[in-house]
Amino acid sequence: MSKDFKQAALDYHANPVPGKISMELTKAAETQADLALAYSPGVAEPCREIALNPDEAYRYTGKGNLVAVISNGTAVLGLGNLGALASKPVMEGKALLFKRFAGINSIDIEVDTEDAASFIDTVANIAGTFGGINLEDIKAPECFEIEAELGRRCSIPIFHDDQHGTAIVTAAGMVNALEIQGKRLEDAVITCLGAGAAAIACLRLLLSMGARRENIYMLDRRGVIYEGREGVNAYKQEFANRTDKRTLTDAVSGADVFLGLSGADLLSADMLLSMADRPVVFACSNPDPEISPDLAHSVRSDLIMATGRSDYPNQVNNVLGFPFIFRGALDVRASTINEEMKIAAVKALSALAREPVSAAVLAACGETELTFGPKYILPKAIDPRLLEWIAPAVARAAVDSGVARIPYSES
Amino acid sequence: MSKDFKQAALDYHANPVPGKISMELTKAAETQADLALAYSPGVAEPCREIALNPDEAYRYTGKGNLVAVISNGTAVLGLGNLGALASKPVMEGKALLFKRFAGINSIDIEVDTEDAASFIDTVANIAGTFGGINLEDIKAPECFEIEAELGRRCSIPIFHDDQHGTAIVTAAGMVNALEIQGKRLEDAVITCLGAGAAAIACLRLLLSMGARRENIYMLDRRGVIYEGREGVNAYKQEFANRTDKRTLTDAVSGADVFLGLSGADLLSADMLLSMADRPVVFACSNPDPEISPDLAHSVRSDLIMATGRSDYPNQVNNVLGFPFIFRGALDVRASTINEEMKIAAVKALSALAREPVSAAVLAACGETELTFGPKYILPKAIDPRLLEWIAPAVARAAVDSGVARIPYSES
Repeated sequence: MSKDFKQAALDYHANPVPGKISMELTKAAETQADLALAYSPGVAEPCREIALNPDEAYRYTGKGNLVAVISNGTAVLGLGNLGALASKPVMEGKALLFKRFAGINSIDIEVDTEDAASFIDTVANIAGTFGGINLEDIKAPECFEIEAELGRRCSIPIFHDDQHGTAIVTAAGMVNALEIQGKRLEDAVITCLGAGAAAIACLRLLLSMGARRENIYMLDRRGVIYEGREGVNAYKQEFANRTDKRTLTDAVSGADVFLGLSGADLLSADMLLSMADRPVVFACSNPDPEISPDLAHSVRSDLIMATGRSDYPNQVNNVLGFPFIFRGALDVRASTINEEMKIAAVKALSALAREPVSAAVLAACGETELTFGPKYILPKAIDPRLLEWIAPAVARAAVDSGVARIPYSES
Repeated sequence: MSKDFKQAALDYHANPVPGKISMELTKAAETQADLALAYSPGVAEPCREIALNPDEAYRYTGKGNLVAVISNGTAVLGLGNLGALASKPVMEGKALLFKRFAGINSIDIEVDTEDAASFIDTVANIAGTFGGINLEDIKAPECFEIEAELGRRCSIPIFHDDQHGTAIVTAAGMVNALEIQGKRLEDAVITCLGAGAAAIACLRLLLSMGARRENIYMLDRRGVIYEGREGVNAYKQEFANRTDKRTLTDAVSGADVFLGLSGADLLSADMLLSMADRPVVFACSNPDPEISPDLAHSVRSDLIMATGRSDYPNQVNNVLGFPFIFRGALDVRASTINEEMKIAAVKALSALAREPVSAAVLAACGETELTFGPKYILPKAIDPRLLEWIAPAVARAAVDSGVARIPYSES
């Protein structure tokens, strides 16, 4: 990042008021009469109603449209373990995105503990305040246990966006890229560099959509995760392959897909050249991808490439997912965000990329052309159609899979 | 409450959107360029700054103007233990009042546990998110331990408003009532009916302002708390009096002050008649006072009376205190709200009631006359001068007592 951009980012956060979000009133609170309704004595009435029937909290409080963005700051962006407080700008940013894209009220909560049990107890204790919880920037492997246990203990959606948001957007782009390349997910050899939370979630979702376990090679810092390798945790073990491949060079040779969720410049030009015809490269390391798009395209012209960057085509950006997934879940008071809802989001997102783009949408996105193809496999992050495409699909999937607590209303 | 009022209160909470507060953006977030500052990649910059220096959270995030209203719902208004979720309308209401009166962003957190240790751990874990914490509607005696332990573990103000807010506003009214009656706090015999959190905090504050322990009679459900009585918890024990008085009739006879924080209609006309000349009666039970103002005034004309009700003169209303006390504390990043700050708030509040009231303020309050005297011992809750009177006094007291982390700025 340039020095000017860094300063602009600091100025944006500091002025004219610190931070990015505020709390505002949705009801009149000027007169003594207003206050008698908002607080004592009138407020006793909704309290009594909720005490009689907890579901009335959705009628009389903001719970149903309120998502907490919760982190302990142990894996902040690509910056690592900065601690709870230093993660606050990211969490406030996520809250901002929830409101901006899906009209969801959202607040950030930083939990100052690295102990998974303490984190779980804390979040479980406060969960009833909210309609849903977006877990964020929590390091692996604790994030798996945290999400699973909170899912068991809470009756609202608990969604670790670094896992599932990333997986959903990646899968949507992958489905489209493979189709354009004339390949099927069922046949694709997929080499995944990275074995953290996002990588595991991406591969799990691709598996549940049809990818084959024997076609997948996952690599961590020590190389290919193969059957019999020692010191592999249970989450990575899920992807241990019966193979003689040991290095990235071994694993990427002949692969149809490279999925990078690791670090800058780890995929060389030679490795890219060794991939199968018409390869798909998702180099999602941020801010610097596993191979620069300029280098990659100079080496191979039959490539479809995506990155995490907004200054190249095909940005894999979580904001394409989480606001709308939660919107759909909240709209039917889903008790969870299950596999059916995730796959519905993938399908809606990949379908939207194939839709013709009107002049109005082009203008909203600040683009002159968006036509489904190698340079446009995912909608733009500020495409105004995302909400109407994804949220209803997720809501319907919740209803159809039996986790919705109210019917879906078209209105 | 009338049926119409009950329905109006429910309608107010339900329409046009559920609840009373929302989250809004304070920064532009329309374009891709905006979002690059608000979230990835720009957001990394303030994260790095805060990781280097935690105080930078006050510059780059909303922490410094954010107060959490936290409850476990074990003592909701006069309704009792309704549980965490059913307390949410009250907590959202308190958040609304923080914003309405002092421009403080505030969110409610309901903690679903009655175990004090679990509550403390939960709140301590999330405390760094906020600039201050307002504890609310937590039953005694757990509330004392909870507040004290959180005060030790957190470096931000932890303020149990049911205790200290009530105490501050009560003390301010009491000081003025005694002055009008020609009495001194140092000499006043005070009978306090009620021995819960509010009663204990009120008496503690009156003591620290000059009241004498031997002049105070505290009564719980079993009568006067006297030296040697068995089964009295440590908090009540603080007020055990060496006395033969046992009943309310005994204790109120000859008293200068009756302070009621108990229940409806517990002070009879005969008891009131037995009090000293020019008595002060604070009958603060809500919604129905310990003696109705109409009855009390019909029995004694030399009375000054206050209640918790807005439809009679001299309302003891916590909203006269907490928004402005927190405003002052936040403005100088006070690490706590100490006794000096509380007394500064009392003095500012009682002084404001003695000030002449301009036509503009009268209009804002919806009143035709407000002149310091028996019917006007406390400012009206919607007096627009409260902020400018109380907050600076509290901020200066924080600076003078050494708990402020930045200087007080007049601007």
